[in-house]
Amino acid sequence: MAKVNKNYKKLAAGYLFPEIARRTREFQEKHPDIILKKLGIGNTTEVLSPSVIEGLKRGVNKLAAVKTYTGYGDEQGKTELRRTLAEYYKSNGVELTPEDFFISDGAKPDSSNIQSIFASESIIAVQDPAYPVYVDSNVIAGRTGVYSNEKNEYEKLVYMSCTEKNNFFPDVPDKKVDLIYLCSPNNPTGAVATHEQLQLFVDYALKNKSVIIFDAAYCEYISDPDLPRSIFEIDGAKQCSVEINSLSKFSGFTGVRLGWTVVPEELVVEGSKPGEVRSLWNRRQCTFFNGASNIVQEGALAVFSKEGLKESRELVNYYMNNAKIIMEGIKAVGLKFYGGVNSPYIWLKTPEGISSWDFFDKLLSETGVIGTPGSGFGPGGEGFFRLSAFGHRKDIEEAVDSIKKNLNL
Amino acid sequence: MAKVNKNYKKLAAGYLFPEIARRTREFQEKHPDIILKKLGIGNTTEVLSPSVIEGLKRGVNKLAAVKTYTGYGDEQGKTELRRTLAEYYKSNGVELTPEDFFISDGAKPDSSNIQSIFASESIIAVQDPAYPVYVDSNVIAGRTGVYSNEKNEYEKLVYMSCTEKNNFFPDVPDKKVDLIYLCSPNNPTGAVATHEQLQLFVDYALKNKSVIIFDAAYCEYISDPDLPRSIFEIDGAKQCSVEINSLSKFSGFTGVRLGWTVVPEELVVEGSKPGEVRSLWNRRQCTFFNGASNIVQEGALAVFSKEGLKESRELVNYYMNNAKIIMEGIKAVGLKFYGGVNSPYIWLKTPEGISSWDFFDKLLSETGVIGTPGSGFGPGGEGFFRLSAFGHRKDIEEAVDSIKKNLNL
Repeated sequence: MAKVNKNYKKLAAGYLFPEIARRTREFQEKHPDIILKKLGIGNTTEVLSPSVIEGLKRGVNKLAAVKTYTGYGDEQGKTELRRTLAEYYKSNGVELTPEDFFISDGAKPDSSNIQSIFASESIIAVQDPAYPVYVDSNVIAGRTGVYSNEKNEYEKLVYMSCTEKNNFFPDVPDKKVDLIYLCSPNNPTGAVATHEQLQLFVDYALKNKSVIIFDAAYCEYISDPDLPRSIFEIDGAKQCSVEINSLSKFSGFTGVRLGWTVVPEELVVEGSKPGEVRSLWNRRQCTFFNGASNIVQEGALAVFSKEGLKESRELVNYYMNNAKIIMEGIKAVGLKFYGGVNSPYIWLKTPEGISSWDFFDKLLSETGVIGTPGSGFGPGGEGFFRLSAFGHRKDIEEAVDSIKKNLNL
Repeated sequence: MAKVNKNYKKLAAGYLFPEIARRTREFQEKHPDIILKKLGIGNTTEVLSPSVIEGLKRGVNKLAAVKTYTGYGDEQGKTELRRTLAEYYKSNGVELTPEDFFISDGAKPDSSNIQSIFASESIIAVQDPAYPVYVDSNVIAGRTGVYSNEKNEYEKLVYMSCTEKNNFFPDVPDKKVDLIYLCSPNNPTGAVATHEQLQLFVDYALKNKSVIIFDAAYCEYISDPDLPRSIFEIDGAKQCSVEINSLSKFSGFTGVRLGWTVVPEELVVEGSKPGEVRSLWNRRQCTFFNGASNIVQEGALAVFSKEGLKESRELVNYYMNNAKIIMEGIKAVGLKFYGGVNSPYIWLKTPEGISSWDFFDKLLSETGVIGTPGSGFGPGGEGFFRLSAFGHRKDIEEAVDSIKKNLNL
């Protein structure tokens, strides 16, 4: 008698993006004439750069010639790409070996799958608010209790508060936890952790033998040279951290799909020797994954060429100029906000007494602009609202104009 | 104190392909002059067909133009591709809806991940021998006991014997099991189940409320019109089966990466209503996966064009002609074998008293040919040896010539 994995039933019913889609659809049906302006989803909109297009075409052409055709590649990714990544990290001052890098089809699969190599009884800590995938993957794996609709919280999960008071970077947990998810620059708050803040977490992890799962998917949006772009810039981090990254936001690969996870040889957990955790992730990938597309890996190699890097940085600048336009607009109407400087996300504080979802409805009905309610990212997101800088310039400008003209504060 | 998932420690140490690589390397170091001939891994060697190359280039070009650029797509895959697959199945007499199809990056990830939507206490039945991923994914998920080196078996796993006596298709289990993995055409034995044989399993599954996980990755190698290419050709299968498939072997996508899983709305398990299991797989994919590459999905659409299908079938014919050459060769030296007719795998019976690994060493040292020891696929594979028809014609011919000339029987 087959039964389902009952942990799925624990998942909070009203998943964020479908609920946004539902409300938007309902609004559009009632007001078919209003052109909606999206500042909601963190999805890239600008074309791939010329070098990357060339790289991808090279990848395709290789499969058309007998001498260069390849079938199954290594589950860990092309050696050349792993070496290239190690060199790129090195150029940023971080020493890792190619063997520490595992190429994948994206940061989302990696950040949801990484928990599976750890014990089922692990205590999980997440920033609150946080990217829902960290939470949901652990709910499904059975590491949480039930969800309370009232509290917007799962039992047994340790929520690390990110508030205005702590500049949206949490204090280390006041109890022992096993796995700690950190995301910097943060989705959704746009906050970026300093060296000092990350050092406190690394020290905590070393002391408590915890593992930090560091999501660096937005690190290329950091322009301030004083801010760390990798957890491995922090002393001791290699002994206690895994880092996840991708080309989605740096090079527009959201639909192309390429990410990587760094599991340093030095990483150890209770009872393990150096290299053992890395071998475990290797075994996981070899069993559950068959390598990133060979075409896409050629495109990734092109990103890390001199020209490719330059073009990807221009892409980042484009989106960051969008962020400036959004910030100027919401500043002009007197709304308070955070982020948006070293991150493509702007974390808007909703006006006094207005909940995240109420602000969603207000913004939609008054301005036609769609954003993301902060409470969708956890209890700590209540009273906030995420605006995303991903979009065509014209659309961003129209959205901001509409907010300036029509938002009734 | 982070700890590892202890189930990983249960995995049998000597994983098949690394061990083959080790022995091969050792041999090559001792005999650097011998050119090795691979009939081992089921990896495609022939170039992608012209239509597919065009489709993939179309996919790349779309990402270079503002109007056609796409970022994140649906986790379930492009609607057009899901619709195309439903139409393709329909042309083979199987009625499914586009919503029953979930596009992925391959059959390996799907066949390893599918277990995760079912209860952790599920009893698992596998064909013996079987593709190791079915077993390993369930070992890691904690559904087995320990591995016995002596028996080459995991405790708690139900092994369904595939032997010469039953034409390498098993009888239904003599006890209640929850999930049943079936692969037809079979990897490694090359056996293809008949309608009648599959009907017995569907009847068993309906009676015992089990779920059949049907791996149809080699279905395009079936030339006999009387043999079923999909489990859904069997009466009642939609209520109790999931089907996994891919373009790896049909169209040479082993490195390109595209597969799909069919979870029919009709599928029910203990306590579920129609549609609930499908929703669960949808939720799983939405949490742990971010869609197959948009470029690759364009290539997949090209496969299902009139020209693309014709070209893919020519590719299959090429490999099947390889199979014929191999079969003629081993027949000529008097070796007994199975498969190879509606399947790219030939299941060789090792000569009396020679184990699978001993035959591996014998074949390598006498002929320079590398194959795959049957015992690597489970205890029932002992005394057998898998030869694969994937390879360039010239290499296949040289391997067969060497067997004919040099194998000392």
